[in-house]
Amino acid sequence: MGHRIVLPNKGSYEVFKTQEFQCPDPRPKEVKIEVYYSGVNFADCLMRQGLYQDAPAFPFTPGYEISGIITAVGKDSKYNVGEKVIGGTLFNGYCSEITLPEEQVIPLPNHFSLAEGASILVSYLTSYMVFIEQARAREGDEILIDCATGALGFLSYEILKKKNVDVIGLTSSPNKKEYFKQKGKTILLPTELGNRKFDIILNSRGGGTLKQDFKRLKPNGRLISIGISNALNASFFNKWKTLLTMPWFWVVRLINQNKGVFGLNVLNLFSTPEIIQQALSKLTTFDIKAPEVIIFKASEIGKAQRYIEQKKSTGKVLISWRD
Amino acid sequence: MGHRIVLPNKGSYEVFKTQEFQCPDPRPKEVKIEVYYSGVNFADCLMRQGLYQDAPAFPFTPGYEISGIITAVGKDSKYNVGEKVIGGTLFNGYCSEITLPEEQVIPLPNHFSLAEGASILVSYLTSYMVFIEQARAREGDEILIDCATGALGFLSYEILKKKNVDVIGLTSSPNKKEYFKQKGKTILLPTELGNRKFDIILNSRGGGTLKQDFKRLKPNGRLISIGISNALNASFFNKWKTLLTMPWFWVVRLINQNKGVFGLNVLNLFSTPEIIQQALSKLTTFDIKAPEVIIFKASEIGKAQRYIEQKKSTGKVLISWRD
Repeated sequence: MGHRIVLPNKGSYEVFKTQEFQCPDPRPKEVKIEVYYSGVNFADCLMRQGLYQDAPAFPFTPGYEISGIITAVGKDSKYNVGEKVIGGTLFNGYCSEITLPEEQVIPLPNHFSLAEGASILVSYLTSYMVFIEQARAREGDEILIDCATGALGFLSYEILKKKNVDVIGLTSSPNKKEYFKQKGKTILLPTELGNRKFDIILNSRGGGTLKQDFKRLKPNGRLISIGISNALNASFFNKWKTLLTMPWFWVVRLINQNKGVFGLNVLNLFSTPEIIQQALSKLTTFDIKAPEVIIFKASEIGKAQRYIEQKKSTGKVLISWRD
Repeated sequence: MGHRIVLPNKGSYEVFKTQEFQCPDPRPKEVKIEVYYSGVNFADCLMRQGLYQDAPAFPFTPGYEISGIITAVGKDSKYNVGEKVIGGTLFNGYCSEITLPEEQVIPLPNHFSLAEGASILVSYLTSYMVFIEQARAREGDEILIDCATGALGFLSYEILKKKNVDVIGLTSSPNKKEYFKQKGKTILLPTELGNRKFDIILNSRGGGTLKQDFKRLKPNGRLISIGISNALNASFFNKWKTLLTMPWFWVVRLINQNKGVFGLNVLNLFSTPEIIQQALSKLTTFDIKAPEVIIFKASEIGKAQRYIEQKKSTGKVLISWRD
């Protein structure tokens, strides 16, 4: 029997339940995977707080991404039992085994450990879509990212480095600034930005910060909004403030200022699998490194989410099913 | 004495006055130009109708672009008397002579006639900013432009051809469709678009058409709004309808749909001359052709603007000072 973590309703860190379940056998072109690690994302925390409009109805099992080893394959599968893989699950990823259609699975790149494999999918796809598909970053761009110190930031640096583009990170934590400076990255505190303007700004905080960042764009610059991380770990009032201050942009203002605004929710791109497949096919081309991983036991999922919400993470938070 | 066309107040095609004026001698790094042709633009018509918020106060001389021959140079000028040039005037272009700072002037490219020279600046800069700087078009993009049959459309085809990108034009006129089809261009009527979706859409009509075009974007696609040509030659009611239906885009909607919206007013980029200079420096690299020109006498400026407003033009409308 497999185990899975269920979110019965919205709540605090103790709300999760663990259930036994019978993982189905793989049908044609499906594979069954023994899960080693499940990735934990910002969006999962929003779901627990009832703030994520596209979440399934309660009760459900969150989780977008896993890594593990194939234990059974359906008819005509291109995979073999024993292969190490990464899987994109679109929910249900918090489980000890899972059966997935082959097109949601890729082989674990050789230079990745299984833990690193579970750390890469959502963050890589997000930074790929932001910088390669939406912003179309190119040499000479000045880029600001406000999530520089997490997995998404790490992979953004990796992808942009391959394109010969420099990035400036933004953090509100002097400790993190110091930590990343030692790793050779340019990270500034908000007070150090001055009047500096940028060609591309990645905003993950949402709310009123989007308007501030819009002002920081150079002519022909673009702002890319990917979420509302400021709503995490906020008071009830500030949570709703973040949601309600997500700005509207009048096209006449865009015209007068020669600027652009993009939005990205990588999960909604799973309905156009060719876009996802193309991004994944570049994963090996880019030959990028994986972010640092911070591993919690599966039974400590509440602790793992709190770690994310307290913005302590300098990498990717995972839960492990094998400890 | 020089002559210039003055717009004393808003009005119909007969509102223009012609004045004599004393064109100043060039100061250091300025040149004085005998103007052969002045370009007439959509925006000029909006100004005559009092619909252009960034126009100077009445009375003023409209006109963004001229071509002509240098008749005097200021101290330290890199130009010589007798050289053929194109000038960006930022208003005041409807005149028979003009003195301009050198950085607003470029030599007439060899393969252009003086008339072609006056046809290129605003349209080239606009299509360059739209497709190279904002949309960052690349091979494989599917592109729709709704101003395919004018000078801007022509130059967009030219620029994108050099980048190996195909364009689909949109026209509401079956006659224009036929005309451009014979020139080997793909032009569709709105009814022929079906459910086709695009990576990049250039919208010059404005108003409610922006929302329709937003729906026609593929995931990761971008809409670029450059004006409100639908307000031209419209009834009083429809003019204001176009202005008032310029949409607001909620960033949450952009996120959920993975789309972007840009705005462009190339004139506002003149405050960052390095962007303009860079675009102009590529004009020779691209080695593009000039659009067809339709020439009116300077005294027929009202007729020239009516021709634009009636959307009869299949190229660039100019007024000539030498007939």
